[in-house]
Amino acid sequence: MRVVILAGGTGGAKLAEGLQAVLPQGDLTVVVNTGDDTERHGLLVMPDHDAILYMLSGRFDFERGWGVAGESWTVMEALAEYGEEAWFRLGDHDFATHIARHARLAGGTRLTTAVRGLQAATGIPSVILPMTDTPVRTEIRIDEGWLDFQDYFVRRRQVPDVREVRFAGIDVARPTGDVLEVLVSADAIVIGPSNPIVSVGPILAVPGMREALAAARLRGAPVAAVSPIIGGKALKGPAGRMLTSLGMESSALGVARRYADLIDVMVIDRVDEALVPVIEALGPRTVATDTIMADDAGRARVARSVLESMGRPV
Amino acid sequence: MRVVILAGGTGGAKLAEGLQAVLPQGDLTVVVNTGDDTERHGLLVMPDHDAILYMLSGRFDFERGWGVAGESWTVMEALAEYGEEAWFRLGDHDFATHIARHARLAGGTRLTTAVRGLQAATGIPSVILPMTDTPVRTEIRIDEGWLDFQDYFVRRRQVPDVREVRFAGIDVARPTGDVLEVLVSADAIVIGPSNPIVSVGPILAVPGMREALAAARLRGAPVAAVSPIIGGKALKGPAGRMLTSLGMESSALGVARRYADLIDVMVIDRVDEALVPVIEALGPRTVATDTIMADDAGRARVARSVLESMGRPV
Repeated sequence: MRVVILAGGTGGAKLAEGLQAVLPQGDLTVVVNTGDDTERHGLLVMPDHDAILYMLSGRFDFERGWGVAGESWTVMEALAEYGEEAWFRLGDHDFATHIARHARLAGGTRLTTAVRGLQAATGIPSVILPMTDTPVRTEIRIDEGWLDFQDYFVRRRQVPDVREVRFAGIDVARPTGDVLEVLVSADAIVIGPSNPIVSVGPILAVPGMREALAAARLRGAPVAAVSPIIGGKALKGPAGRMLTSLGMESSALGVARRYADLIDVMVIDRVDEALVPVIEALGPRTVATDTIMADDAGRARVARSVLESMGRPV
Repeated sequence: MRVVILAGGTGGAKLAEGLQAVLPQGDLTVVVNTGDDTERHGLLVMPDHDAILYMLSGRFDFERGWGVAGESWTVMEALAEYGEEAWFRLGDHDFATHIARHARLAGGTRLTTAVRGLQAATGIPSVILPMTDTPVRTEIRIDEGWLDFQDYFVRRRQVPDVREVRFAGIDVARPTGDVLEVLVSADAIVIGPSNPIVSVGPILAVPGMREALAAARLRGAPVAAVSPIIGGKALKGPAGRMLTSLGMESSALGVARRYADLIDVMVIDRVDEALVPVIEALGPRTVATDTIMADDAGRARVARSVLESMGRPV
């Protein structure tokens, strides 16, 4: 059963990890947001791709919430001594990821092939595909003006209210052939519980991506979305406040409204069960279940629930 | 007193360190070979520049003979797991140097400015100038064919006989304005005890460099060379065998022959005292002294001897 998940940050990565655990080896493909990507010290850093890579290869630091477990910081400290900006912290293992990717890109390899090489080296059975090979960069407008995404997300710790979001480079971006191929042969497609605006948003904004999802549904592959908002709040990250400051509702309903025309099934948390009829009125069949993914068992449980909600039980 | 030393690997770096120790702060400029430079993992690595940087900033690992003392290897090990070539070992602190330089170069900074930024951050009082800003790459012909320098030097451990040496990119290389400026105002110029073929050779092969040395001598600045060959052998590295396999003599005389038309003074080791009249017959006044630089005191002693040999005592 070929399952595709569209994912950004931690929530989507956790569900991807759960899906990898419950599906037969090799059946999972993750299409990952690249809007968070950034150039640090002349190296391409891909926070969402790498969170998923580390999670799927069992190296993610769940305690810190990002990066590799047991990380060391020698390079970053030495870089700071050379006067390099140090607010965007990168560990030694993380640097190795960025250097290995940079080496491939500097050799003329396209982005998808470069990251596939890293994934293969870690031995993960799943495939992680960048949504596109060309640079897309999420930018955030706060009252003071436009910021690069990581400037808002890391340096300013998501404190300022978000007034507007744009994806630089999105007009000329296209889904890669690799992405189109997995969508055209998918048996089920999941929109992960990632920030709907800045994690899933860029993926859906790639010209041709919505049409590829619509085509998959036309040939019978169900699309389900999992709400990252539980009881009106995001478990982690700024999704809740971002929805509100952009004039949307910080609730599973607000999320469902963004996806309603794209999906067959909406999966929300049990605490939001009262919203089921309201969301169903928008179109998608709606399932309320425990969506907290606190550990391996939780991630596998949610993965099973989501597959079951689409009529694709494992 | 403005002193310039042309230097490559360890020997030249040690004399540079001795000169920095005995000269007033800021009086030393090193013009460094860039022919050893190489791209590793998409990053520019400058073995000679960095050896000198580490030595002048008190971080050189004298025990290992290269890199930073107390080095760790986390990044290299992680890179090897990603399938990157690992025969050219780079430590975590070394990686920080290459990343910080790469960051500056990726921002469009020219090589000299990029490395001056790193030097300034370490607080060293001396200046290290690349011989040129454009890529020059030393290539070595062995019986099997042409090799990149580091392939010969590190991977093949200098075992094969050297049949020919060339410097790719040398025709279009020019001494930088920074290099010409220090040569035009130098009070004394030293050719360090580095490999005359692959360390000093590329520097002297930059079109315009020999003329700049000749111009300095014309206005009265003495040029001295220090032999890296002691008792017929190099203390370290392949200089001796390289001279022989290229049809030259592995001796202080062989070295003097290469520099005779460029220098006023030849400094050789006391064990080679018998060669003094033979070398003087070539032209340069010749001084035999203890040239072993085993520790701080030794490096300072040789530095003083060399300056004294040029009539520039400190």
